[in-house]
Amino acid sequence: MNINRILFVSELNQELEELLAPYKIDKSMRFANEAAVQESDLQWADAFVSFKTKTSYDYSQVKWVHSLGAGVDHFLFQKNWDDKVLLTRTICSFGERISEYCLSYLLKDVQLHNRFKELQAEGSWQPIKPSMLNEAKVVIYGTGEIGQKVASVLSSFGVEVYGVSLSGKQKTGFKQVVANDDASGILQTVDYMINTLPLTKKTEQLFNERIFSKLSQAGFINVGRGESVSEADLLAALDAEQLRFAVLDVFANEPLPEAHPFWQDLRITVTPHISAVTTAEEAVQCFVETLERVENDRPLQNQVDIEKGF
Amino acid sequence: MNINRILFVSELNQELEELLAPYKIDKSMRFANEAAVQESDLQWADAFVSFKTKTSYDYSQVKWVHSLGAGVDHFLFQKNWDDKVLLTRTICSFGERISEYCLSYLLKDVQLHNRFKELQAEGSWQPIKPSMLNEAKVVIYGTGEIGQKVASVLSSFGVEVYGVSLSGKQKTGFKQVVANDDASGILQTVDYMINTLPLTKKTEQLFNERIFSKLSQAGFINVGRGESVSEADLLAALDAEQLRFAVLDVFANEPLPEAHPFWQDLRITVTPHISAVTTAEEAVQCFVETLERVENDRPLQNQVDIEKGF
Repeated sequence: MNINRILFVSELNQELEELLAPYKIDKSMRFANEAAVQESDLQWADAFVSFKTKTSYDYSQVKWVHSLGAGVDHFLFQKNWDDKVLLTRTICSFGERISEYCLSYLLKDVQLHNRFKELQAEGSWQPIKPSMLNEAKVVIYGTGEIGQKVASVLSSFGVEVYGVSLSGKQKTGFKQVVANDDASGILQTVDYMINTLPLTKKTEQLFNERIFSKLSQAGFINVGRGESVSEADLLAALDAEQLRFAVLDVFANEPLPEAHPFWQDLRITVTPHISAVTTAEEAVQCFVETLERVENDRPLQNQVDIEKGF
Repeated sequence: MNINRILFVSELNQELEELLAPYKIDKSMRFANEAAVQESDLQWADAFVSFKTKTSYDYSQVKWVHSLGAGVDHFLFQKNWDDKVLLTRTICSFGERISEYCLSYLLKDVQLHNRFKELQAEGSWQPIKPSMLNEAKVVIYGTGEIGQKVASVLSSFGVEVYGVSLSGKQKTGFKQVVANDDASGILQTVDYMINTLPLTKKTEQLFNERIFSKLSQAGFINVGRGESVSEADLLAALDAEQLRFAVLDVFANEPLPEAHPFWQDLRITVTPHISAVTTAEEAVQCFVETLERVENDRPLQNQVDIEKGF
C-alpha cells in the first residue's frame, strides 16, 4: 500500500513530531490537535494517526487509520467502520506493563501488605505466614497478546492460570483455556479473576451477576475496559463476598466522576487508567514499524479485525 | 556416618512427630521441648535437631546438628563450635518465598500503590505513569542460594541486578558481582538495596553510615538479619534521604520491642520475620533428605561452613 500524506491528530503533536524527526520519514506529514483539524485535512490525507477520537470523522478518503493506543473501541464501538480502511493499533510493552500491574496487586494480597500495615500501626508483632503464588488459581479473561503475557508471568511463579476467550482455543501460558459458556467450573475455584478483554458488543457488561455469582471470595482486577463491568453487580458481589476485593484501572466514565461510590469504598482500589500507558516513544516506534510493514505489504501483527473489534 | 539416636528439641515436636511418621525412619527418636531437655538426652543422642537454641548445649557427644531453620547464627554467632560436629541447615522454598516478598515491595513502589491510595482517598484522578521494573537497578548483598534466587526473579523482569559478596565471585542472575570494598560505584546508582546476608562476625553492623552514605533516595529491604544493620545509622540515612524507605522483616531484637521507633515511622515497613517462614512440612522433608545423605556419605548442599558461618 502506498502512503504519502499522513495526518496526526493528537494533543501530543509537538512531542510526536520531535520523536519522529530522527526516523527521517520521507512523507508529507501534517500535525493538528483535535480542535484544529479540518475536513480538508481528512480529504488530503491517505493515513490518519490518532490516540483516540472524541468526534466522528469521515475516514472514507484515507486508506489507513493507526491508533496510538492499544484499545480501538474509540474508533469502532457503536460506530460504523468502512471495511476498506485498514485499522491498526499500538502494541508495545502493554503486556509487560499490565503484567507488572496485575502481579503487584496479587503480591500485595498474598504478602498481606494491608494486614501487616494495620498491625504495624498497632505496634503488634503477629507472624502470619504469607501464602505463595504457587498456591493461587487465577482466571484471565482474554487470551490475546496481553492476556498471554500476564499468563506467562504468573505461570512462571507456579500460579495455576486458566483462560477464558470467545473461541476457547488453547494458548501458551495457560493451564487450560475455555469458552465463556464453559467457565462456570473454573470460576468456582479461582482466587483471582483478571479482565484483559477489549470492549466489543460481546464484552459489554460481560462481568455481571452471572459471572460474579459463581465466585467465592475472589479478587477481581480489571485492566480491560470499564464498560465490560456492571458496576451495580460488582458492588453487590462485594457485599455478597463473592468478591473479596476489586482493583479497577478502567471505568465506564473516565475520569471517574467525583461523586462515584468507588472512590470511598475500601474494598475497591481505584487507579487512573495507568496500567498500560503508552509512552510517546513507544507509540512512535510502533507507528514507524507499522508504516514500514504497510508500505511493503508485509504481515501485520497489530491489524484490527473489524468484525471482532480488536 | 551412622546415625542411630536422634534428639528433636522444638516447640513443634508434636507436629514434627506426626509429619515424620509416614517416612518410617528406623531410628530411635526422642522429642523434647527446650524446657524439658536433659543433659542425659544430649549424652544419649548422636544427632540433634532444633530450630534454634536459646541456651548453650554441650554438643560434644553428637556427631551431627541439623537446624530446622535457614539461619544458623543461633548456633554459631558469638559461640564456639566443635569442628568435629557436622552442622547442616534447612534450605527449602526460602529463595522463592523471599523473592516474592522482595518483589512485592519493589512492585508496590514502582506501581505507586501508596500514591494512588492517597489520591483515591482524595477522590483525585491523576494519571501518573508507573515506571517499569526494567528501569530499576538493584544491589543484592549475599549471592548464595537466596540472593541468587532473588536475582534471577528480578532479572527475569529486566531489572539490572548487582551482587555484593565476600569473594566478589561472579554468579548466575547477576549482571556483576563485586566484593564489599568495591561496591561504592554500584551503591551510588542503585534504586534498591536488598540484604540477604547471614549474621556472621563480618556482617554484624555491616549496614552502617559507610554504606548508607553512598546511596541516594534508595529503597532498602532487609530479609537477612537485623543485627547486620545499625539502627541509628538507618534512621539517619532516612533523614538524609540517602534512603527513601526501608522494608524490614528482621530485627536485632525480635519481637520488635513495643517502644521501638520503627513501629511508628511511616518511612519504614515492619513485617514480623515472615519473609522466609519454614513450614513444618518443608522442614521435615529437608531433614529427611539430609539424614539420607548424611547416612550414605553423599554430598551435602546444606552443610554449614563453620568458618564462614553459613
